[in-house]
Amino acid sequence: MEKNRLEAFSDGVLAIIITIMVLEMKVPHGPDWAALRPLLPVFLSYVLSFVYVGIYWNNHHHLLKACRHVNGGILWANLHLLFWLSLFPFVTGWMGENHFTPLPSALYGAVLLLAAIAYYILQTLIIAEQGGCESKLAKAIGRDWKGKLSPVLYAAGIALSFIRPWLAGFIYVFVALMWLVPDKRIERVVSE
Amino acid sequence: MEKNRLEAFSDGVLAIIITIMVLEMKVPHGPDWAALRPLLPVFLSYVLSFVYVGIYWNNHHHLLKACRHVNGGILWANLHLLFWLSLFPFVTGWMGENHFTPLPSALYGAVLLLAAIAYYILQTLIIAEQGGCESKLAKAIGRDWKGKLSPVLYAAGIALSFIRPWLAGFIYVFVALMWLVPDKRIERVVSE
Amino acid sequence: MEKNRLEAFSDGVLAIIITIMVLEMKVPHGPDWAALRPLLPVFLSYVLSFVYVGIYWNNHHHLLKACRHVNGGILWANLHLLFWLSLFPFVTGWMGENHFTPLPSALYGAVLLLAAIAYYILQTLIIAEQGGCESKLAKAIGRDWKGKLSPVLYAAGIALSFIRPWLAGFIYVFVALMWLVPDKRIERVVSE
Amino acid sequence: MEKNRLEAFSDGVLAIIITIMVLEMKVPHGPDWAALRPLLPVFLSYVLSFVYVGIYWNNHHHLLKACRHVNGGILWANLHLLFWLSLFPFVTGWMGENHFTPLPSALYGAVLLLAAIAYYILQTLIIAEQGGCESKLAKAIGRDWKGKLSPVLYAAGIALSFIRPWLAGFIYVFVALMWLVPDKRIERVVSE
Repeated sequence: MEKNRLEAFSDGVLAIIITIMVLEMKVPHGPDWAALRPLLPVFLSYVLSFVYVGIYWNNHHHLLKACRHVNGGILWANLHLLFWLSLFPFVTGWMGENHFTPLPSALYGAVLLLAAIAYYILQTLIIAEQGGCESKLAKAIGRDWKGKLSPVLYAAGIALSFIRPWLAGFIYVFVALMWLVPDKRIERVVSE
Repeated sequence: MEKNRLEAFSDGVLAIIITIMVLEMKVPHGPDWAALRPLLPVFLSYVLSFVYVGIYWNNHHHLLKACRHVNGGILWANLHLLFWLSLFPFVTGWMGENHFTPLPSALYGAVLLLAAIAYYILQTLIIAEQGGCESKLAKAIGRDWKGKLSPVLYAAGIALSFIRPWLAGFIYVFVALMWLVPDKRIERVVSE
Repeated sequence: MEKNRLEAFSDGVLAIIITIMVLEMKVPHGPDWAALRPLLPVFLSYVLSFVYVGIYWNNHHHLLKACRHVNGGILWANLHLLFWLSLFPFVTGWMGENHFTPLPSALYGAVLLLAAIAYYILQTLIIAEQGGCESKLAKAIGRDWKGKLSPVLYAAGIALSFIRPWLAGFIYVFVALMWLVPDKRIERVVSE
Repeated sequence: MEKNRLEAFSDGVLAIIITIMVLEMKVPHGPDWAALRPLLPVFLSYVLSFVYVGIYWNNHHHLLKACRHVNGGILWANLHLLFWLSLFPFVTGWMGENHFTPLPSALYGAVLLLAAIAYYILQTLIIAEQGGCESKLAKAIGRDWKGKLSPVLYAAGIALSFIRPWLAGFIYVFVALMWLVPDKRIERVVSE
């Protein structure tokens, strides 16, 4: 039951984050294409961030399904993850409004990186709670190449932001697509 | 239990969408009718969109009630639907602020159309998960004339936006009313 | 289970309404009392509306506790109630920003009145679903003097807004206090 | 079941509060450090408030876990707590935008103090509902030195705001850290 409330709170926060990001797309005053065009980059970064929050919700869902007990550490690791995700609307709006210029693009990558680290901490605590490496989840995640590759790519994206911002954007899109491919591993072991 | 969390997250997102749309009705500064009058079209499009989100919540509710298992495809089809619905506040605000001019009216129809397609995909995946045409839901939906007629009408609305915007508005209202008539089909079969 | 989702969705909408009202209290730029003072009426109308939404949540909670089955009519009556409640942030902000002048004060009363009517419709449908006057809820509500007196007082408040706005404000506060006295009736019968 | 809905509603409100605070960090227009720098104090007060709302969610979670029955008094004490917490986005934004000047800093402390008092009232009512001092929760909380020390420190923070605002900020951070140390007491007794 304790777990349910953690899920409910996280669902609430994720639902709000994914929805208020759209508020950064300010309703334009004119009724024509010219008024709409400046919103295109904002829209594109909204799509990207929507997919990212969707991925996090999806993975969070699988992660907690594998979790039976919740302790204080897990509660705070979860809040820590939600903190970085709560910055998505801000960095998404900033990147979108500034057409993928260096600093906004690097900051976007930094928040992605910090969220990934927070997710890793949460995952580690949940595995520890369930009895170390023997736990179902640990087996399911196995070598977790996606979880290990993503931070490296985010870091590359941050560095590339200052040289070729569009390459950074390309990397962020690539990582999102990589995660979109459904993560069969956890599903398989859990449903055994 | 997996299903519960999908419902909870969707409820959260739909609750937020339906509520933040009202934020597009900016509080006017003057205390008289003159200050309130420009908000009338914004209010009308708010009412229309509120009804649409209500219809989606209602149908989504019935759809998932008929659903037992949730897989990765259903999770993402659901997020895809929520994505288009999350654009309602934006297109509602734009259409309202520009008094139902061609482009905002067409964009509103386009988002309605894309949400309808997303709903159809979600419905198809849920039926597939439950064992094809033999599933309860497939029987309940039957020929699904509303689901098939709506996209056609939305497309007509988009086209008409550029000729007679008020006719497009009329069509959007008509489709909403068509759905407001309660969908007895699913209720009947499910409660058998 | 159907009922649970209706409650969850309503809780979501009410939670958002009660919280986004605070966004109408725009953060002032100066750091002193002079900057804070214009916000006092906004704050007072926020408090009033917070209490009203709290009352609705409270009553809604008791109403649905007494309800076993949910049908299409109840779903829409509930959405209808949520619609009028969703206008609270707007009318609260307008009344607060215009220091309780006639029109904003009357509109506030009108939304209160329409929400009360919507609540009455919902209550009637839930009683009907449970088997007419014999239902537990009908007995619990009994003569329901609060529910009958409130619309009369709201109507009086609307009329008085154009003569003595402060008297309208007084009436709205009075009705809120009247409801704050806990509604023992339903609790008693339900817990029997 | 009654309790579940109280939790769900509180979770919703807390999830929204913790998330809309980020909206006070307005997306800057420029793409460089100069545009970002003014947001640093806003960011810092966001972090502080995020931690505070996290602490309240955490404690609220433990408090209600220990609670079996919910009555009218508890419902309103809970809404009273949520009211003060709902002012966090406002006072956070004001303090952040005015770089921790006296009045915003004192108001922040005042809202912290009022929320602490509201929490104390809620806790007292829950203990009373469960049969006075014999209740599990009362034993678990014991002397509750954190709960007793915090209001004193908040009051000190309010007073110091007018003399040394940075000292007030230091105190608010200190109290947050004090609570971050996980509260083993309740967890221990409840899980016995």
